[in-house]
Amino acid sequence: MNDATQPSGEGDDGGEVGIVSHHDFDSPETFFFRSGESVPALRIRYETYGRLNREASNAILVCHALSGDHHCAGQYSLRDRKTGWWNRMIGPGKPIDTNRFFVVCSNCLGGCSGTTGPSSPHPETGQPYRLDFPVPTIGDMVRAQALLLDHLGIDELVAVTGGSMGGMQALQWAIDYPERVRNVLALATTPRQNAQAIAFNAVGRTAILQDPQWQGGRYPEGEGPHVGLAVARMMAHITYLSDEGLQQKFGRSRRLAAEHQSVEGVEFEVESYLRYQGQSFVSQFDPVTYIYFTRALDRFDLYALGGGSLEEAFAPVRSRVLVIGFTSDWLFPPEQNREVTAALLRGGKRASYAEVDMEFGHDSFLIDAPELRRFVREFLHRP
Amino acid sequence: MNDATQPSGEGDDGGEVGIVSHHDFDSPETFFFRSGESVPALRIRYETYGRLNREASNAILVCHALSGDHHCAGQYSLRDRKTGWWNRMIGPGKPIDTNRFFVVCSNCLGGCSGTTGPSSPHPETGQPYRLDFPVPTIGDMVRAQALLLDHLGIDELVAVTGGSMGGMQALQWAIDYPERVRNVLALATTPRQNAQAIAFNAVGRTAILQDPQWQGGRYPEGEGPHVGLAVARMMAHITYLSDEGLQQKFGRSRRLAAEHQSVEGVEFEVESYLRYQGQSFVSQFDPVTYIYFTRALDRFDLYALGGGSLEEAFAPVRSRVLVIGFTSDWLFPPEQNREVTAALLRGGKRASYAEVDMEFGHDSFLIDAPELRRFVREFLHRP
Repeated sequence: MNDATQPSGEGDDGGEVGIVSHHDFDSPETFFFRSGESVPALRIRYETYGRLNREASNAILVCHALSGDHHCAGQYSLRDRKTGWWNRMIGPGKPIDTNRFFVVCSNCLGGCSGTTGPSSPHPETGQPYRLDFPVPTIGDMVRAQALLLDHLGIDELVAVTGGSMGGMQALQWAIDYPERVRNVLALATTPRQNAQAIAFNAVGRTAILQDPQWQGGRYPEGEGPHVGLAVARMMAHITYLSDEGLQQKFGRSRRLAAEHQSVEGVEFEVESYLRYQGQSFVSQFDPVTYIYFTRALDRFDLYALGGGSLEEAFAPVRSRVLVIGFTSDWLFPPEQNREVTAALLRGGKRASYAEVDMEFGHDSFLIDAPELRRFVREFLHRP
Repeated sequence: MNDATQPSGEGDDGGEVGIVSHHDFDSPETFFFRSGESVPALRIRYETYGRLNREASNAILVCHALSGDHHCAGQYSLRDRKTGWWNRMIGPGKPIDTNRFFVVCSNCLGGCSGTTGPSSPHPETGQPYRLDFPVPTIGDMVRAQALLLDHLGIDELVAVTGGSMGGMQALQWAIDYPERVRNVLALATTPRQNAQAIAFNAVGRTAILQDPQWQGGRYPEGEGPHVGLAVARMMAHITYLSDEGLQQKFGRSRRLAAEHQSVEGVEFEVESYLRYQGQSFVSQFDPVTYIYFTRALDRFDLYALGGGSLEEAFAPVRSRVLVIGFTSDWLFPPEQNREVTAALLRGGKRASYAEVDMEFGHDSFLIDAPELRRFVREFLHRP
């Protein structure tokens, strides 16, 4: 199937990658964070789809967002009704075409889905690291991914792609490993968060840190600041959507009339939806990873990296770059995406910008839309 | 000083109302809520500025927003450095000119600043009502204000005014007491909240209700869901401001460099600001009132009142109405303010709309701005 050149026409939704499973790469070397801190060894959990060609020249790296993981396509069993988070984008004949490309996606350093992070056992004590785990930067995440690619024998990537925090990683790849990345496709991203985005992250962290179950991070396994994490997720979820999207999906629909409503109950459909989002998140996500990843987002600052100049930060870039912004994204709004492209162009780089008119807010990059699929397909399939 | 006709020119900031104190009106009658529930008696705490004329024809009622109270102008002592929440708007020579007008502002029914509400003692037990207090609607709040005006001998108001939840009350006044209100000045308001605004309120309520200290509302006095209330306030505070306003005020300013930063600490100025907002709110506000007022906001729906038609809801209105929206308000955005005016005009009412270009988001109505002062002054001072 590798290097297949069968045409993948527009309107062709493509097939499924099918049943997949994850792999673990155990790096036995000490991993040093940019802060100077280190961990004695690293496990990186990842998935791959498609086949690596003989020259190892057809790999695409997919980077996940805050609440994502390495499972971005396929399903784990025939009974598994939940596919990977970018399943509509990745598969045979799909925009990230597994007939042509070897797709790699790993759980980020500091994550909680298999890659070493705060919930992993400290090798000396066997107890979870928790706050003894260093806070990774986006640069640290990218360096861990580079280790994985070394292990897989991939020197150069066809592309790195991702949305939101994944878009930050894609940009960081272009800066840190210019010789290893031919194309960068960054969606719903930003060169640095503004005060409002930091503010929302700060509220989420406060909800977790001030939960009495936080206990300075020394809560027993299986327990912890579940209420705080659920509240953080509920609030963040609003910021991932848009006013218009929420209005179309829920409007003012009620579960119960006000007169049948207990004060403590759920009255509007949108309340019920958010409660579910919060509660289901708690069973899947680690509170310390949540704190760490929001810190990584807050600290990501390409202006600072370039001594105040975004153009300077992008000076090493050799990749061709496509940035995609979404009209209804008010967390990392179109302006911030355009800012990235403009700075690249000022620096003489090969960059372009596409804006997709979708009403799903920041999370639009996760949603299936023909226009978005077309941009991704054309960017990856043209020379 | 009453009925003074001295000119109050533009650019004249006016004088101060000076030292003020509150009054309590104890209504001995059973107060029935629209839900059919009742409380056996009602205390309404209020302040007044200026003097009521002999004909009792110069009164303006000011209605407060969610976290406001009856103290909208002046200070409580010479040492009191905090003036009332609309002090720049109210005073001798100011837009709401106390040389001409008798200004009344009461703490809303269900509030926590002196008017009977969930934190008031239940007359039978002496213990706080808490959840035994009925949830007021905006209509209930307005009816309690009407009782106060009856007590003060005021049949007709020159104007009712307020922003946000106060704007809802002003609109409700025009509908429920058309013969008692000559002018309505509603700022940063909405005929009904959309899903996003309900969603933010729902997260705030969840933070309070899921705080272990909530204890079904049966927490000891002085204790309670302080963490949840602080988190709710922090989040809500972001929605009262704007992206641009936060960016200008805080940007990415840091208190500490990342490398000197504990994971649990406050790193960015905007984080520090929000923590302070949350913590200081806890000492001033009652968690049950917070839940009740957000429910009142969520349930306010003038479309439903008019059987689906906003024009129908406004059919009884006889007042002249000015609605003021703010360009950067994304909680009750300009469109929703224009919607009110448009429906009034369609129904043949005397209505106008002004949009003020301010960067402070929803809270712009609380901020001192020459253009805003001019609109208010001209509306109230022209026949």
